[in-house]
Amino acid sequence: MPKDEGIYVGVDLGGTKILAVAFDSKLKVLATEKAKTPRDAHASSVVAALTETVRRAIAASGKSSDLGGVGVSVPGPLDRAKGIVRFTPSMGFKDYKLGQELAGIFGVPTYLENDVQAGVYGELRAGALRGKQNAVGVFVGTGIGGGIVIDGKLYRGSTGSAGEVGHMILHEGGAACGCGNYGCLEALASRTAMAKDAIAQSATGKAPALYSLAGSDLRKCRSSVLYESIEAGDKGVKKAVDRAASWLGVGLANLVHLLNPEAIVVGGGVVTRFGQRFLERAIASMEAHLMPGLSGTAEILLSELGDLSVPTGAACLALEAAEAAR
Amino acid sequence: MPKDEGIYVGVDLGGTKILAVAFDSKLKVLATEKAKTPRDAHASSVVAALTETVRRAIAASGKSSDLGGVGVSVPGPLDRAKGIVRFTPSMGFKDYKLGQELAGIFGVPTYLENDVQAGVYGELRAGALRGKQNAVGVFVGTGIGGGIVIDGKLYRGSTGSAGEVGHMILHEGGAACGCGNYGCLEALASRTAMAKDAIAQSATGKAPALYSLAGSDLRKCRSSVLYESIEAGDKGVKKAVDRAASWLGVGLANLVHLLNPEAIVVGGGVVTRFGQRFLERAIASMEAHLMPGLSGTAEILLSELGDLSVPTGAACLALEAAEAAR
Repeated sequence: MPKDEGIYVGVDLGGTKILAVAFDSKLKVLATEKAKTPRDAHASSVVAALTETVRRAIAASGKSSDLGGVGVSVPGPLDRAKGIVRFTPSMGFKDYKLGQELAGIFGVPTYLENDVQAGVYGELRAGALRGKQNAVGVFVGTGIGGGIVIDGKLYRGSTGSAGEVGHMILHEGGAACGCGNYGCLEALASRTAMAKDAIAQSATGKAPALYSLAGSDLRKCRSSVLYESIEAGDKGVKKAVDRAASWLGVGLANLVHLLNPEAIVVGGGVVTRFGQRFLERAIASMEAHLMPGLSGTAEILLSELGDLSVPTGAACLALEAAEAAR
Repeated sequence: MPKDEGIYVGVDLGGTKILAVAFDSKLKVLATEKAKTPRDAHASSVVAALTETVRRAIAASGKSSDLGGVGVSVPGPLDRAKGIVRFTPSMGFKDYKLGQELAGIFGVPTYLENDVQAGVYGELRAGALRGKQNAVGVFVGTGIGGGIVIDGKLYRGSTGSAGEVGHMILHEGGAACGCGNYGCLEALASRTAMAKDAIAQSATGKAPALYSLAGSDLRKCRSSVLYESIEAGDKGVKKAVDRAASWLGVGLANLVHLLNPEAIVVGGGVVTRFGQRFLERAIASMEAHLMPGLSGTAEILLSELGDLSVPTGAACLALEAAEAAR
């Protein structure tokens, strides 16, 4: 086949859904397929669902015979070089050789990547960070993850865990974080943090719409529910979301002080949902916390690829490995 | 002259003193000379004092005819490539072409560097960070400065200001910082922060020795004074220093979460004075704030070079430029 006619599939293997996207060698999207992630915590069901979703994406691309490689993002610790998922209990993975198994199934090289790192890489190759040399990605969801770009490449650190922006402590002794610390960015600005704050507001009657939509169930406070509650006039929910944006700005200021990046891309469902207004509040807070000389040095950008950032980054791994091997 | 017989002078041009050190091409110290920094805020007096100190170091090295280059660290913003000191009012520098002037005086290439970056570079080339690829330096003094090493090189960021670890916010809304923010690492763990806390303790009678040595004058609370007060039994001073070490640990945890470095070197007069015990308290606090998987991933090291880290880093700039030019 001609060199530039191959297709590359990037997969976002998430806790609730699997998203498989087939790209051509210019990273044009050819097909997108979704499935629910099996909830039985068995690796075999997860691998079967993943395989089936990838096959559907390949078939829908119309270029079934030209598969060049597969990249899969995983929401847990992994050994990239060996293609091993270290530990993702909700999927039944424990030191699981997922890369090798998938390479056997598809008959092409298969690469694994951490989900957040894949997302930052996707934005770097084909999104808001295109062409940047020094940058950071911050993804806000139930938690907050991130990745660091140095000299145009993902910076991994000494044991592969660089970029844990969500566990940067901004307010020691403040809100409790799932990591066991207090006052981490994630405990202050994630969707979970917004939901906790918003539910607390409903106790004083300032979030009636939220209460009717989600009660006091944190899991039901999805981005769309928070958004609808604000649209319905819930002042308490607006306050909670605004506060999270302000804390995000403190985190962005810390990143600028430390890394002096050209740009920081901010993404994730809740940010996408609230969009530019959310970002502007975060930027205003960041500027209020920057040393004078650093004001305006970093562009703060919304994710361009949205849900596609992770599969794009995952597919790029396979595409670039194929290019390097030629 | 034979290639490896040249000498290189590194100068730490500080607000109170000038330290000039002559090194051979293996970075062995040949001579060390000091002078007080003129306090008249005139560039010409500062340049004259600097020149005279460098000449003394060259003469004392016994190799006057073999000067290969000079590196000077400056405590303010600069344009390294052009050798221009942007703004150091206490020395009368404003867009001052110091590099060019000194090159004319000494007849050899002369390089400028930020003082903290030079210190980190010195530790990287010849001190605690020797051989490290990914590392951070944190220097505690009246303020807190730092530098980041990526792939064995100083990481500068997009506008040359990367590594402002002192202005990482750890406790938003906490102690006031000179930068205008609240709760920066510098406001919590610098010598100035220790002094403020210790003086406050003297109001309740818990720092009598400090009170007799320094009264309520922050500037008089030098490292030696804090140390002597603790030795004399001042519980309030010990509490202040211990608290600063604990905050430093929170800052170290943030650096590990973000950068996942192999090592972090901690230096500066106050750290040198209190030594390993101070560092151990900081490490204990860091460990208490790390996510489980990151415990033990970064070595936390005391500066090996002490006062020589800055001149060593400055001299390395000249030495390496000479090597590159061969």
